[in-house]
Amino acid sequence: MNTLVVKAGGGAGVDLDAICQDVAALVGEGTPVVLVHGTSAAADALAARAGVPVRQLTSPSGHVSRYTDPETLQLYVAAAAGQVNKQLVAILQGLGCNAVGLSGVDGRLLLAQRKTAVRAVENGRQRIIRDDYTGKLETANAGLLALLLGAGYTPVIAPLALGAESECLNVDGDRAAALVASSLEAATLVILSNVAGLLANFPDESSLVRCVTPGGMDAAEQMAAGRMKKKVLAAREALAGGVHQVILADSRRFAPIRSALAGEGTWIVSSQ
Amino acid sequence: MNTLVVKAGGGAGVDLDAICQDVAALVGEGTPVVLVHGTSAAADALAARAGVPVRQLTSPSGHVSRYTDPETLQLYVAAAAGQVNKQLVAILQGLGCNAVGLSGVDGRLLLAQRKTAVRAVENGRQRIIRDDYTGKLETANAGLLALLLGAGYTPVIAPLALGAESECLNVDGDRAAALVASSLEAATLVILSNVAGLLANFPDESSLVRCVTPGGMDAAEQMAAGRMKKKVLAAREALAGGVHQVILADSRRFAPIRSALAGEGTWIVSSQ
Repeated sequence: MNTLVVKAGGGAGVDLDAICQDVAALVGEGTPVVLVHGTSAAADALAARAGVPVRQLTSPSGHVSRYTDPETLQLYVAAAAGQVNKQLVAILQGLGCNAVGLSGVDGRLLLAQRKTAVRAVENGRQRIIRDDYTGKLETANAGLLALLLGAGYTPVIAPLALGAESECLNVDGDRAAALVASSLEAATLVILSNVAGLLANFPDESSLVRCVTPGGMDAAEQMAAGRMKKKVLAAREALAGGVHQVILADSRRFAPIRSALAGEGTWIVSSQ
Repeated sequence: MNTLVVKAGGGAGVDLDAICQDVAALVGEGTPVVLVHGTSAAADALAARAGVPVRQLTSPSGHVSRYTDPETLQLYVAAAAGQVNKQLVAILQGLGCNAVGLSGVDGRLLLAQRKTAVRAVENGRQRIIRDDYTGKLETANAGLLALLLGAGYTPVIAPLALGAESECLNVDGDRAAALVASSLEAATLVILSNVAGLLANFPDESSLVRCVTPGGMDAAEQMAAGRMKKKVLAAREALAGGVHQVILADSRRFAPIRSALAGEGTWIVSSQ
């Protein structure tokens, strides 16, 4: 049975209970699922609690990421692999789904290269950031996921990766989900977040783009605003890795995964 | 090959690098190892950082535990399953040992019953605490550990358990290690902390008790002071569960596991 990979956004408003209900139901019906999650709201809350300012980096191409200096990394790991991951596992367990929480650090599940010099644009000027612990994803250990799936467990993955010097790295959850989907040869990746999908005129939800075919990818990337840029990039990477379709869909509703699979959201499809 | 279970204390002064070096070397030589860890110093530090006071509960029989109200639980989960667990996994990965971090919540690894009414002694008077999220351990999922060990992974376990209502619970790491050792039918459990072992006259380290035989268990429990009480209790539970010997040893030294196996610390042995 082909595995379904689902990315649950980490932003405010994402309904984790609704996502977990769908995951548990799908697993109960015999569809193996791997759930990858974000962390942004929980990491922001923990940083605020600890009095550490949250800072964003904007790349020259407009991608936004969390500035993860060593102090922020400590709190990010705590929020990602601790709070959000175990919250999701506990919810799934309560629904009868035997979830196992992992991060990319565990069993070399996600390996990445630390970005030792990050170019960031601030007030229109470029700076080089050298103490950022963000990683560029390289490989996923599909064998560990297959081992757990084969024994009836549902893997839940926190967006961390292991660097070449065995450091924990913050990695983008959407791109991590894309890599996981490719490595498992999944047909479908569903990326859920607190928006309806790709919007031609953000934030006008009536401008939802229903379908992006291979010829439309460049236009979709141009169209994407803010955090949606990374989701379209992740979709491109997943398709390049052999995934047949990536669905960018809304997690603020009942049955978000089933709705996405039934045709809601933005479908980004391959030529295969 | 019989699995060795090691508990790494979570207190200040515990040398996690030295413990991991021994674990990696033992695994490299063909001995399967499961590492269970504590969290106390990291949980205290994160709570201090977040401005949440750390409170202890003392039971009528003198056992001390962390008062884990819902707010403390959030930070405890972050420190245990996030910070300490992933730190250990990353250190082990850097030593070539393919560690996988889990908590008791994952895959129903540790199931516990929440203590909904905890008797605590405060200023000589007993109180009943009703918002504590501490659990009494019941069962361990040895199958998940065997699955990972069989595939060449080294499980690293954070001291959380899943409650009957799918809540995360704080559980004692020593007793968790004892349950894990019993469930894996391990011959040996090594409990490392920042003391030399059981001391007849705490804190005089020259009063180290070298060996406790079955007939001496009651006397050992009487003798144990402070946190050592739980370690002796854990040892009793491990022996009752079929473990042959429990070694309470010092983690503040070079090669702490090998030293313990070579005869250092306090050996608590069964009649088998």
